[in-house]
Amino acid sequence: MKPLKVALLGCGVVGSQVIRLMHEQAGDLAARVGAPLELAGVAVRRLGRKRDVEVDPALLTTDAEALVTRDDVDIVIEVIGGIEPARSLIVSALSRGKSVVTANKALLAADGAALHEAARTGRGDLYFEASVAGAIPLLRPLRESLAGDHVKRVLGIVNGTTNYILDKMDSTGASFTDALEEAQALGYAEADPTADVEGFDAAAKAAILAGLAFHSRVRAEEVHREGITDITATDVASAKAMGYVIKLLAICARSDDGRSFGVRVHPAMIPRSHPLAGVREAYNAVFVEAESAGQLMFYGKGAGGAPTASAVLGDLVAVGRNRLAGTRGPEESTYADLAVHPMGDTVTRCHVALDVADKPGVLARVAELFAKHDVSIQTVRQEGHGDDAQLVIVTHRATDAALTATMEGLRELDIVRAVASVMRVEGDE
Amino acid sequence: MKPLKVALLGCGVVGSQVIRLMHEQAGDLAARVGAPLELAGVAVRRLGRKRDVEVDPALLTTDAEALVTRDDVDIVIEVIGGIEPARSLIVSALSRGKSVVTANKALLAADGAALHEAARTGRGDLYFEASVAGAIPLLRPLRESLAGDHVKRVLGIVNGTTNYILDKMDSTGASFTDALEEAQALGYAEADPTADVEGFDAAAKAAILAGLAFHSRVRAEEVHREGITDITATDVASAKAMGYVIKLLAICARSDDGRSFGVRVHPAMIPRSHPLAGVREAYNAVFVEAESAGQLMFYGKGAGGAPTASAVLGDLVAVGRNRLAGTRGPEESTYADLAVHPMGDTVTRCHVALDVADKPGVLARVAELFAKHDVSIQTVRQEGHGDDAQLVIVTHRATDAALTATMEGLRELDIVRAVASVMRVEGDE
Repeated sequence: MKPLKVALLGCGVVGSQVIRLMHEQAGDLAARVGAPLELAGVAVRRLGRKRDVEVDPALLTTDAEALVTRDDVDIVIEVIGGIEPARSLIVSALSRGKSVVTANKALLAADGAALHEAARTGRGDLYFEASVAGAIPLLRPLRESLAGDHVKRVLGIVNGTTNYILDKMDSTGASFTDALEEAQALGYAEADPTADVEGFDAAAKAAILAGLAFHSRVRAEEVHREGITDITATDVASAKAMGYVIKLLAICARSDDGRSFGVRVHPAMIPRSHPLAGVREAYNAVFVEAESAGQLMFYGKGAGGAPTASAVLGDLVAVGRNRLAGTRGPEESTYADLAVHPMGDTVTRCHVALDVADKPGVLARVAELFAKHDVSIQTVRQEGHGDDAQLVIVTHRATDAALTATMEGLRELDIVRAVASVMRVEGDE
Repeated sequence: MKPLKVALLGCGVVGSQVIRLMHEQAGDLAARVGAPLELAGVAVRRLGRKRDVEVDPALLTTDAEALVTRDDVDIVIEVIGGIEPARSLIVSALSRGKSVVTANKALLAADGAALHEAARTGRGDLYFEASVAGAIPLLRPLRESLAGDHVKRVLGIVNGTTNYILDKMDSTGASFTDALEEAQALGYAEADPTADVEGFDAAAKAAILAGLAFHSRVRAEEVHREGITDITATDVASAKAMGYVIKLLAICARSDDGRSFGVRVHPAMIPRSHPLAGVREAYNAVFVEAESAGQLMFYGKGAGGAPTASAVLGDLVAVGRNRLAGTRGPEESTYADLAVHPMGDTVTRCHVALDVADKPGVLARVAELFAKHDVSIQTVRQEGHGDDAQLVIVTHRATDAALTATMEGLRELDIVRAVASVMRVEGDE
């Protein structure tokens, strides 16, 4: 049987695992695809570099564009990441009718439309399971298994680095800086951790998830994004004391009228009894709530060479099978074309700690301000006395706009010395 | 666009939800499939019966065979369950080139080969996501997402009825009988609960999971099966005291040399810190351990009309899309053709409680017996005194044959008054 020829772009942590697996499991892969898979070439930045895997030097090239446009190449695997040259290479390959497997969440969230358009024109496949939550089969279930259902909400931990940091802060009482340094020492965080700790990585994944869940097109810039750099050991400890844990969540939720949806990434307090609270270290987990299926959860490793390569190979088998059958997998589905609503319209809850003057009437004035903004209070607790007096308030559900206006009002109240912390509360409605 | 015509076999709890969803989501389904789906007929046992959903009486028929062989029918959905007439109807449909979506685990586990063969001959699709773990997308990830990986083990709670009963026993201290009655009153257990409590239902699902995971053919009768009817409130309480919880597990595990695998369903103690320990009520959850992907978990509702119908509709969209594209989904994959090894070769651990005579030398004689069978002891604890003296032993990993031989030897020891309980321990190696 004529082999399918595969071009690999990138030979780093993921790429070298892809090569190893393609080699070690060549027989199995051939049986599953229906034809052998043959590595046609590997595009790298520098030829001489030491690599984690043995590669025939004749396969290496620095001319990625020439590789992806070769007539004999059937499938292109892109694991270089970033916007360029990845975008041009993928578009080149797709528009020439090749199928593409990519793990590039940043590119998909920035300009997925251009890639999907190129796949449509060239009539090849564009698969990207590895772009969100690494090894966890999540996109295929959303794209296919739930195709007959209506997704209401996707809520998950999709960034392993920040989960590792927050988990350390929670379990050891460490500060953000110390936990970050430990994550860097262990290789869970990069030297420049911005993409992870500021939520950019999670926001790109949230955009991809929301697009699939709601059959609409979502760009990363439409995602409301807040990182975890301002979270203090005190925030973590006070959440713990109340039976909560702080996690960086990606939340995609359809509005009640079904006409729009919100997409956001921010730290939030969730109850310790919530299944996501038990997601430790660098693991990922995603809750999906659908009308008929109810609540589903997917859990596993969200990053790393071998787990990501496993997801890439699953896609490789699928696109290989499709090519042999002369068919294509499901195209991008944007038929619903719903709008992303602004963060202010999102319905959420809030935990607020206020440093207040310890005198009669304080609670009444604070409560009055909440009422003025139509935000109802679920619990209020007074802690300390005199100069240490603090009011800890958890609200009922309200729009983010009303909650924000309430916080602004609190800052202006003369009896409030400081708004010590504000955090959204999720997962217990 | 010409509609795809769908014949539905069965209009009970699941069938009526399928009709409701096909009606309510007709527009969405058409967009996802690429053509409208039209209900061509509904086969029922009796015409006059009251149903949970409104059905055009003209669609109802008692002649299922005539319905599935109608030339204009493209897709057949089978939700009647049981072996016959389901098998004949599905084979009739498949061999005439129609695609079939079924939720029938018993039939797939008893005679899946005949169904897959008919699908191959007729060149239609046979999809069965709803047959295991209801709404949880599990088979598609195993069949497709992990197609480039090697599954080492599948371990899960796949029967909601028994999980509900064991969870009640654990949380309230109820006896098996009382918990079963409560489950029956709430509709979680049937009047004749045999299929659930004796593990037949879980064994059928284990056979399907093992077949997919290890690319081999497995029949239900090859699954080692033990039910939960002998589990007492005392067993549950003593597991609880040791930090364990008892669950009915389905376990499919490849042998260390990769040449065979074991498939078994039996109650087992798992540590309370294990993610499966937190699976409450009638929920299902399945752990999958793969070489590259690492540990994955899937969690959700394992039964019920709407969740099962959601899985059926996901398959319906997939087979509908395939038909329009003139292609087929992945066929049964049995290329590995591994053997199922006997239960005795399975490696596991054991918890044993022995009523013993309270005198010096008892522990030495018991320990000697374990050593004779090459079973090493992890922990031993003595409880009570005099006539109440009990030894509680947890072993290290050993073959089930060695453990069984040890238990038989213990029963014959004069110093052992009774083997009060024996249970396998899983999930903490």
